[in-house]
Amino acid sequence: MESLKVGLLGIGTVGGGTYTVLQRNQAEIANRAGRQIEIVKVADRDLARAESITGGKVALTQSIDEVVSDPNIDVVVELIGGYTLAKEAVLKAIANGKHVVTANKALLALHGNEIFAAAQQQGVIVAYEAAVAGGIPIIKALREGLAANRIEWLAGIINGTTNFILTEMRDKGLAFADVLGEAQRLGYAEADPTFDVEGIDAAHKLMIMAGIAFAMPMQFDKVYTEGISKLESKDIRYAEELGYRVKLLGISKRSEQGVEIRVHPTLIPEKRLIANVDGAMNAVLVKGDAVGPTLYYGAGAGSEPTASAVIADLVDVARMQHANSAQRVPYLAHHQMQAADALHILPIEQIHSAYYLRLRALDKPGVMADITKILAERQISIDAMMQKEPLDNEDAADIVILTHITQEKNINQAIVAIEQLSALDGQVVKLRMEALSR
Amino acid sequence: MESLKVGLLGIGTVGGGTYTVLQRNQAEIANRAGRQIEIVKVADRDLARAESITGGKVALTQSIDEVVSDPNIDVVVELIGGYTLAKEAVLKAIANGKHVVTANKALLALHGNEIFAAAQQQGVIVAYEAAVAGGIPIIKALREGLAANRIEWLAGIINGTTNFILTEMRDKGLAFADVLGEAQRLGYAEADPTFDVEGIDAAHKLMIMAGIAFAMPMQFDKVYTEGISKLESKDIRYAEELGYRVKLLGISKRSEQGVEIRVHPTLIPEKRLIANVDGAMNAVLVKGDAVGPTLYYGAGAGSEPTASAVIADLVDVARMQHANSAQRVPYLAHHQMQAADALHILPIEQIHSAYYLRLRALDKPGVMADITKILAERQISIDAMMQKEPLDNEDAADIVILTHITQEKNINQAIVAIEQLSALDGQVVKLRMEALSR
Repeated sequence: MESLKVGLLGIGTVGGGTYTVLQRNQAEIANRAGRQIEIVKVADRDLARAESITGGKVALTQSIDEVVSDPNIDVVVELIGGYTLAKEAVLKAIANGKHVVTANKALLALHGNEIFAAAQQQGVIVAYEAAVAGGIPIIKALREGLAANRIEWLAGIINGTTNFILTEMRDKGLAFADVLGEAQRLGYAEADPTFDVEGIDAAHKLMIMAGIAFAMPMQFDKVYTEGISKLESKDIRYAEELGYRVKLLGISKRSEQGVEIRVHPTLIPEKRLIANVDGAMNAVLVKGDAVGPTLYYGAGAGSEPTASAVIADLVDVARMQHANSAQRVPYLAHHQMQAADALHILPIEQIHSAYYLRLRALDKPGVMADITKILAERQISIDAMMQKEPLDNEDAADIVILTHITQEKNINQAIVAIEQLSALDGQVVKLRMEALSR
Repeated sequence: MESLKVGLLGIGTVGGGTYTVLQRNQAEIANRAGRQIEIVKVADRDLARAESITGGKVALTQSIDEVVSDPNIDVVVELIGGYTLAKEAVLKAIANGKHVVTANKALLALHGNEIFAAAQQQGVIVAYEAAVAGGIPIIKALREGLAANRIEWLAGIINGTTNFILTEMRDKGLAFADVLGEAQRLGYAEADPTFDVEGIDAAHKLMIMAGIAFAMPMQFDKVYTEGISKLESKDIRYAEELGYRVKLLGISKRSEQGVEIRVHPTLIPEKRLIANVDGAMNAVLVKGDAVGPTLYYGAGAGSEPTASAVIADLVDVARMQHANSAQRVPYLAHHQMQAADALHILPIEQIHSAYYLRLRALDKPGVMADITKILAERQISIDAMMQKEPLDNEDAADIVILTHITQEKNINQAIVAIEQLSALDGQVVKLRMEALSR
């Protein structure tokens, strides 16, 4: 059979890895795909870099258009990133009847509905395994492997940068800012780390997974997103003393009230496997009603791990290029999607969670009674409480309270009331907790 | 589109789960598959049980033949188990042009080559996600998700019964026989537990995974298999003191010398995620050259978890029923398989491993020198050593030695020499160790 002709948009870290792995494992990949997969043209602004990777074996261009409109190309691999150029390129490729493989989570989380609709109309594949959790085949697991299940919830460590930072903060007791600097020096964090540390990158990936899990169109503006830049290492330490690890989790759940989609630092019992996923590694925990909890772990970023996912998609395209749409897996796993508002996405005030509260209060009689009364009045029950001894030269001490599950608005009201107590020194720190057990 | 008509052979634990989940999640599954999946006929010896599960909604029979030759049936789900009846039924279904979904690892490990050849000739699918690690979509990950990779090795906890027993032995310090009794009472172990505790079930599953990973025809008689029935809880305790957990692992590796395929109790560093997979849960660690290490975790057995895998296969069949063989994923992931002997499967004496040795010796000068000399003469280097104090009423003490990697035949020769030392009390206990880090 003829080879699958690939046009590559962007030959940086992931594009370079894709080229290298396709060359190195050419025979193995062809033996799996049933035909050769061949990169025939590469577009990149940096022609010298492109040349040094491809060694003159592939046509190079600086023009995206030249790739997406090349009649010889079957599938366009979009590794440009960002929204503007990438969106234009992907839509043009689709309009030209080309299949698309992309690693671009931002693009799909924001413009997935439009892109999938265009692809459907043209009868082409849009594959995006590399967009979530790098080399872990989590999209395939969600779209196909768990097809028997009603997905109840999923929770993932889906940003390597923040997981690296949190791991270092815990291991070394360092502050966020210090570890961020180290991460930037090591190449684990970008010069502008906002997308990673503020949870936006994780939110993009979470939106895509929730779309598959719940047959829900993309609605990224409704994802609650809270990063780790304000997290204090003290809270990581206290959490550890109580048997928990703090991870930046992307969580999505379905309940009778609606769907929760949220990214935030989260306390997890240290006994859970996912609590022990450290460094830049990723993991996603998926709970299906039939299968129970399943976990998928691996490298969430990097050149060859992400290339592994890109190429897995290319192998699928090589097989399904001429299949009909009934034979292909639907873009978000479901033939009929929910209406955008059918699954009500809950505002953060309406979610249910357990909470970690840390406050600082003068060490005088009656403080604890006041606090517990405020919680009791709002039907918030206490799971554990830890009072630290005040240091010698201080008259205030840290108090940590773990609550049982309650609605977020209750905890917010309780915090307002607690902060009005005269014995209170400063504000209450609130972190969410997830048992991840059922 | 017309519904996919399923004939079910066996409606016990997994068959019952398959029926129940297909009913409960009917709409969700149809929305994913693009058509209804409908069980139209069930064969089971126990008609009363079949009737109580299906409630009269499905035609029942005691005749396997009636299902496999029903012209109305598209796909036969084989949940009979064992080799004889199951093999006959599967081959007849294939001969009649029906697709097959099976959870039968023993059947595939022993007769997979014949079954896949027959299916290829008839142009039908044989899907077997449920045969390995229950609900974990590990077959899909290996066959499709990691298609870009040259698989270097894989290692799995793929038998829930033994993992439950090992977890209990560690947690409670109990002997194998005591925990086995408990496991039998709880339904985690069969009345005749041989297949599980002697590692045969794990070896079946390992053979299937190795076949996919290395494009290697089934050759089950070459899998080295050692169970946990002789394992002493003392060794689990000593391993723990040294920072290791003992797990029954199925391990397959490719090296320049050949392929290793082996099941045995294995010491793993406690920091590895897979070392913390406890109870009846399963996990498989797969190392690809591009993606690095990836881990897949979930329930490896049970009614609905296994049904989850069976139904995922049915959804694939619903899509690919009329696809051509170039569009389908090859049975063992590769279009061209290796010749049976092209990948030389190494006899256990030729594998490379690190080792845990435990011996009992009289507490007198020179013993350690003798032992270390024996190891050094065979170029076996010592990684760690632990000498226990003899109890008050005893004059011999336990010595534990961890070695670096060496060939198994070297360690066996060393053990023979050590056992000839006059100070030695009894035999040397040998366990293999795996770092699972690269």
